[in-house]
Amino acid sequence: MSRILPVGVAQLGPIARNESRQSVVERMLDLLAQADERGCQLLVYPELALTTFFPRWYIEEQAEVDAFFEHSMPNPDVQPLFDEAARRGIGFHLGYAELCEEDGHTHRYNTAILVSPAGEIIGKYRKIHLPGHADNRPEKAFQHLEKRYFEIGTYGFPVWRAFDGILGMCICNDRRWPETYRVMGLQGVEMVVLGYNTPAISPDSPEIPNLQLFHNHLSMQAGAYQNGCWVAAAAKAGWEEGVEHIGGSCIIAPTGQIVAQALTEADELISYHCDLDLGKHFTQTTFNFAAHRRIEHYGLITERTGAIPPAK
Amino acid sequence: MSRILPVGVAQLGPIARNESRQSVVERMLDLLAQADERGCQLLVYPELALTTFFPRWYIEEQAEVDAFFEHSMPNPDVQPLFDEAARRGIGFHLGYAELCEEDGHTHRYNTAILVSPAGEIIGKYRKIHLPGHADNRPEKAFQHLEKRYFEIGTYGFPVWRAFDGILGMCICNDRRWPETYRVMGLQGVEMVVLGYNTPAISPDSPEIPNLQLFHNHLSMQAGAYQNGCWVAAAAKAGWEEGVEHIGGSCIIAPTGQIVAQALTEADELISYHCDLDLGKHFTQTTFNFAAHRRIEHYGLITERTGAIPPAK
Repeated sequence: MSRILPVGVAQLGPIARNESRQSVVERMLDLLAQADERGCQLLVYPELALTTFFPRWYIEEQAEVDAFFEHSMPNPDVQPLFDEAARRGIGFHLGYAELCEEDGHTHRYNTAILVSPAGEIIGKYRKIHLPGHADNRPEKAFQHLEKRYFEIGTYGFPVWRAFDGILGMCICNDRRWPETYRVMGLQGVEMVVLGYNTPAISPDSPEIPNLQLFHNHLSMQAGAYQNGCWVAAAAKAGWEEGVEHIGGSCIIAPTGQIVAQALTEADELISYHCDLDLGKHFTQTTFNFAAHRRIEHYGLITERTGAIPPAK
Repeated sequence: MSRILPVGVAQLGPIARNESRQSVVERMLDLLAQADERGCQLLVYPELALTTFFPRWYIEEQAEVDAFFEHSMPNPDVQPLFDEAARRGIGFHLGYAELCEEDGHTHRYNTAILVSPAGEIIGKYRKIHLPGHADNRPEKAFQHLEKRYFEIGTYGFPVWRAFDGILGMCICNDRRWPETYRVMGLQGVEMVVLGYNTPAISPDSPEIPNLQLFHNHLSMQAGAYQNGCWVAAAAKAGWEEGVEHIGGSCIIAPTGQIVAQALTEADELISYHCDLDLGKHFTQTTFNFAAHRRIEHYGLITERTGAIPPAK
């Protein structure tokens, strides 16, 4: 049996601080047209795809921060993407900074949506593993202030029946955490889609260079294999406002193998015809969770947040 | 800061069904001598290191099965290893089939012990993720009857302060499960030691060949990186009673990189001087669990054993 879903991953090169959303959406439309030529039915765009990666800066003025956020979705800047994707019958995944009013308060999230081939938003995810810090650290080469600008996601890790399969989403740093994939794996996820912005050199550990691309793939390959699912991941890549970001956008099979990978750090489309039934080789044997998981021995994972070494 | 622990991994080639424990222990003593020459303070032997991998056979007679088990540890067959390791001041990890009387009943486990440089057993682990099946499947090229011959481990995944660090153990199939590493990571583990017997071709998925070595390393590299710990893993390798087992014994750094790897499928020693402080680069930044984990969103991991897809 096979259920083939042709998937594209639309890597974006750098977006300058002064580049307009209109310009970015035009780049995204170019990639959409390429995806259509290849027969893609789903196209994955990066995290915070519509602007530069602003959490690298400590910004005092909230209004200046909020200019990087979308106050509704879709909105006039993004509407051409919704329209053209629906015209072509291609669904997509899009990451953006979400500003919303809920419960009488203003909230800000690092968000991704899943849009059907008909142009309807059918799923929304808000990033849970916010990396970095909330305080100003001007001594760093660049900062990572996601914990300042965003609240923690409120939806958990849901999955959706869509594209004739079961899809889930996560965002950037979420992909390093095995819990992310497992919570979706326990809901039968067949494909995880995500975007990321990852500096090529971490300001936290410059003494361990050249490993960011390796860690990017390692975490996603393990998540795919260990849950018998596909992973399709789109980078925003290249030198953006003085900081280099890794590319390495990829599509990973449930075998853990990378089956498509971007070579550049620019706008680049990769694609693969993914068989959503392939994961069953694993979820019915080695990773038949019902047969093999032993939750009575996993208690610490949900009981304890931080590590507590044994007493000396 | 650095805390260097010189670690050896003693891969064993095949053990025939009729090879005596005395003969196996002599092979292990040879590897111990090599480890001493390299200055190792800890030596890791494989899973079920003292006999052939008997769960490949469906055996009716319990007495015939029990002949593969150790009824005490140490025992006269293994005492020379304990004596010589203590004489050399080298600690070790040893996997074996454990038969014991507890609570008035006979129990059988797939067990590993951690032995101090003074020859004292300081830790014991019993395998939790038993692979395979309990029923007779004579139609298979070979069987995998761990679920028949062993009970599920009773100790969880403890860690021990030993060798000037914090060590944990798991066994073979445990290494494929991210929960294994995470439960130890939440106890501050700095090195996980383990052994494995892994057929080169899985009878469950012969149509996906050549990936066993890749999956072996992928799971352990991800576990190391995502928990900021070392992993030292010893295979029993080669053609054993008509079944080929992968080698690939390795030592993996907290960076996820393989820093030493066996090339053969025979008895082979690999070693590395492991800095137990290296993991702090990760556990104090990207994988500072206290700062970044969100256990309120991990509930399914301990609530649900098997996967439950969303309603159609």
